[in-house]
Amino acid sequence: MQAHPFRVGVAGLGTVGAAALKIIARQDNALTERAGRAIRVTAVSARDRSRDRGHDLSRYRWFDDPVALARSDEVDCVVELMGGADGPAKAVVETAIEHGKHVVTANKALLARHGLDLARRAEERGVALAFEASAAGGIPVVKTLREALAGNRITRIYGILNGTCNYILSRMESDGLDFATCLAAAQKLGYAEADPTFDIGGFDTAHKLALLTSLAFGTEIDAQSIYVEGIEKITPLDLKMADELGFRIKLLGVAERSEAGIEQRVHPTMVPKSSAIAQVMGVTNAVTIDADAVRELTLIGPGAGGDATASAVVSDIADVASGTVSPPFGRPTARLDKAERAPMQRHEGGYYIRLTVHDRLGVAAGVASRMAEARISIESIVQKRPAGSLPPSDKHGRSGDPVPLVLITYAATEAAIREALEKIAGDGLVSEEPQVIRIERE
Amino acid sequence: MQAHPFRVGVAGLGTVGAAALKIIARQDNALTERAGRAIRVTAVSARDRSRDRGHDLSRYRWFDDPVALARSDEVDCVVELMGGADGPAKAVVETAIEHGKHVVTANKALLARHGLDLARRAEERGVALAFEASAAGGIPVVKTLREALAGNRITRIYGILNGTCNYILSRMESDGLDFATCLAAAQKLGYAEADPTFDIGGFDTAHKLALLTSLAFGTEIDAQSIYVEGIEKITPLDLKMADELGFRIKLLGVAERSEAGIEQRVHPTMVPKSSAIAQVMGVTNAVTIDADAVRELTLIGPGAGGDATASAVVSDIADVASGTVSPPFGRPTARLDKAERAPMQRHEGGYYIRLTVHDRLGVAAGVASRMAEARISIESIVQKRPAGSLPPSDKHGRSGDPVPLVLITYAATEAAIREALEKIAGDGLVSEEPQVIRIERE
Repeated sequence: MQAHPFRVGVAGLGTVGAAALKIIARQDNALTERAGRAIRVTAVSARDRSRDRGHDLSRYRWFDDPVALARSDEVDCVVELMGGADGPAKAVVETAIEHGKHVVTANKALLARHGLDLARRAEERGVALAFEASAAGGIPVVKTLREALAGNRITRIYGILNGTCNYILSRMESDGLDFATCLAAAQKLGYAEADPTFDIGGFDTAHKLALLTSLAFGTEIDAQSIYVEGIEKITPLDLKMADELGFRIKLLGVAERSEAGIEQRVHPTMVPKSSAIAQVMGVTNAVTIDADAVRELTLIGPGAGGDATASAVVSDIADVASGTVSPPFGRPTARLDKAERAPMQRHEGGYYIRLTVHDRLGVAAGVASRMAEARISIESIVQKRPAGSLPPSDKHGRSGDPVPLVLITYAATEAAIREALEKIAGDGLVSEEPQVIRIERE
Repeated sequence: MQAHPFRVGVAGLGTVGAAALKIIARQDNALTERAGRAIRVTAVSARDRSRDRGHDLSRYRWFDDPVALARSDEVDCVVELMGGADGPAKAVVETAIEHGKHVVTANKALLARHGLDLARRAEERGVALAFEASAAGGIPVVKTLREALAGNRITRIYGILNGTCNYILSRMESDGLDFATCLAAAQKLGYAEADPTFDIGGFDTAHKLALLTSLAFGTEIDAQSIYVEGIEKITPLDLKMADELGFRIKLLGVAERSEAGIEQRVHPTMVPKSSAIAQVMGVTNAVTIDADAVRELTLIGPGAGGDATASAVVSDIADVASGTVSPPFGRPTARLDKAERAPMQRHEGGYYIRLTVHDRLGVAAGVASRMAEARISIESIVQKRPAGSLPPSDKHGRSGDPVPLVLITYAATEAAIREALEKIAGDGLVSEEPQVIRIERE
C-alpha cells in the first residue's frame, strides 16, 4: 500500500459535488482497499461558500477561485463538476493538466467541444482525464466501451441518454397526456430545467453520444455532425399508434458504422416493445452495444441524479488513485481515426410516417403510389377514422375532414422518404406537416 | 509505449480458447493501442494437438503439458481455459502464480472452491488473477462490481447466470412444453450437456454467485453455504399460473445482505413481468445490482459461448497488459470479511405455493387457516378447476379429484412456510408434494 494518500480537490459543489464528498467520506475504508491507498478530499471550491450542503466543509481547504484549486500543491486530482462547455470549467481542467494533476469530470458539454484537445494535453502530461460520469450518469458505459469490450469490433451503440425525455415520453404513453402537460410535470418534479430546450431538443443526448461514439469506434469526437431532433413534436396519437403497431417511442442517441461512414443521430425512435430498451421507463437510462464478439450488451441504470453521477465520479477517482492511467478515449489521440461522416440523407432504416390526409376516396392509393415511385416498400398502412364515422366510399361520408394515415416502411433511405413526402405534399393530399419517426430494430 | 510485447500463453483450446486466439489476432492493433504495448500469444497447450480449430497454431510454441507452459520463460500471462475445480487447471494456475506470471481464467468451479487461496498467492507474488469470464460470460459484471461501483454499498445482487436454464424456462413458457421436452431441445442445440445436472440443478449458477457475492460484499468466498434448488420440478402449469399472476419464472442466483448476515441462494424465482430481468429470454444472462448510490443497475448480455466468453478473457488480458493489477476480489484477501451466513430458514420474502388438493368443500379454508396460524398473510388465492366441472358445493360435484390451489403470500419466513406446509400435509388436504417458488421483487 502506498504511504501517501491520494489528494482530491473538488471544484463545483452542486448536487453531484456534494454527493461525491459524502460518498468518499462514507466509503473511506472500502475505497482505500480498492485503490491501495487512502483517498482524501483536501480542497473544495464553489460559488457560494455559505450554502448548506448537508456536509461539513470545514475540514477541506476552501478556494474561492477554482483555478487556484486546480494548481494547488495540495491536490493530486482535480474533480471538475462546475459544468459549461467553456469558461471557468475549461480553465480549471486546462490548469490542472498543465500542473500535472489528474482530472475527473462529469462535463459532457466541455468534452464534446474540447475533449480531443484536452485528452491530447492529458496524454502529453501523463495524467488521467476520466469522464465516466459524463455519459449516462451511474451506468459504467465508458469503462465498458474502453476496457470491457477491448476485444470487440463495435458496430452500433444506441441508448436512452436523457432521463428528462424518457420521463416525458413514459408519462405521455402511460397516462395519454400531451407533451406540454408532461413537460410541466417533469419540471415540477425537478426532472426538467426551467428552460428545457437543452434536454428535450436532444442536445444533451448529442453531447453524450459524441463521447460514446469516439470510444466505440476509436474516432475523433465529432459532435458537430450529429443529426439532432427533439421530442417536442411527439403526440399522444403517435404513442398510441406505436403501441398498436408493437413499438414504443424513445429518444435515442444512435451511432452506427455503415458503409457510408459513422452515422450519429439523435431523434425520437420507434423500438420494438420486446427489446430491452423499450422496457426502460421514467428517468432511467439504458445503452445497448452491438459488437462482433459479445453480440449485444445492454446496460440499464440511473442516468442522472447526485448520488448516481457521484458514484461514477468516485469510481474514476478510485481508478486513477490505483494507478490506472490510460488514454481518455481508449487509444492515444493521435491514433484516433478521423470520423468519416455518414450524411443523414444516406441513413437507411424503417420509418413510421403519420400523415394527416383529407378523408377522401383514393388518398391512401395516392400516397402509396408516391411511395412506390420512390422505391419505398410499405410494411403496413393504417387509416384511422373517428369512431362511428362513415367510410369515405359512402356518398354521405366524403367529408374531406383531416384524418391520420399511418405508414410503416421497410428499410428505405432518408433521401427517398423526403422525396416521397415532398411529392405527396405537392399532390395536395395532406393538410399538415407529416410526422416522421425512424424505427430502430434490435 | 512499452517496448516489450506482453506474452500470453493459453492453456486449453476449446471453443473459448480458440475464440480468444482469433480475437487477439483480429484486434491486434486496437489491443496494442488500448494496452500501450503489443499483446502476443506465444504459447498454447491443449489435449489434442491435431484437432482443427480453424486457426493456424504453428506460430505458437506448443506444450503438451500445460504446467510446463505455466512456468515457461516465454510467457508473462497464463490464460487458463481448461476447466475443472481441481487437477490440472489448479496445477496450472498455482504454477503460473508461483513463477510470477499473471493469470486470467474463466474457471468458476476452480475459483468457487480455491479462489481465496489462489487470490492470496497472487497478491503475495504481486501478479494479477483476473476472472471476468468466470461469471456471466461476456457481461462485464466483475469489472462493474470491483471498479465501477467502488463508491457504493451493495445491498443485493441477483441474476440469470445460466443460459441453459433460462433457455429451458423460456421455451416452456413460450411453447407450453414440459421440462423434459425443452431440456432435450436444449441438448440438441448444444445449449445443454449430455449430463445436464450441473446446469439445471443450479450448481453452475451457485459457483458464479459465490464469486459475485465476494466481490459485492467484500466477503470471503463461501460457496458451501449457498442454498441450491434446480429447475427440474417446474411445470407448464407453474409458468401459466405465474403469467396469470403477473410474474415470470427464472432461475436466479441471489445474494443479499440481511440482518441475519449474507444470504446466498439459487432457486427458481417469480419475478414481476415488468422487471428488466423478466424480459431476458433464451440463453441470455442478466445481473441486477442494488446499491446505495446507483440504486439499481442491470447488465444484460451473453452468458456463454466461445466469442462472448473470449471477449471477457481478452478484456482481462488487456487490463493486465496495461498494468492494472488490483486485488482479485476488490480488496486484499486478508481484509475480506468472514461472511456471516444467513440460514435459509430465516429467508424472508413472498412465496408462490401451488398445492394439489382434493376438490372438496372447505379445503381452501383449511389451508388458509393453517397459513394464518403460522402468521403468513395471503395476497391471493386461486383455485383452478378443470373447465366445465361443477363447483364442489354442488351435491354432484364433490369428486375429491386433485385440483391445484395456488397461494401468493406476503413476506414470510422460509421457516413459517415450511411449518404451515407440514401441518397442511398432516391434515390430509393435499395429494402431492407442494410446489414452492420464492418471489423476488425489484
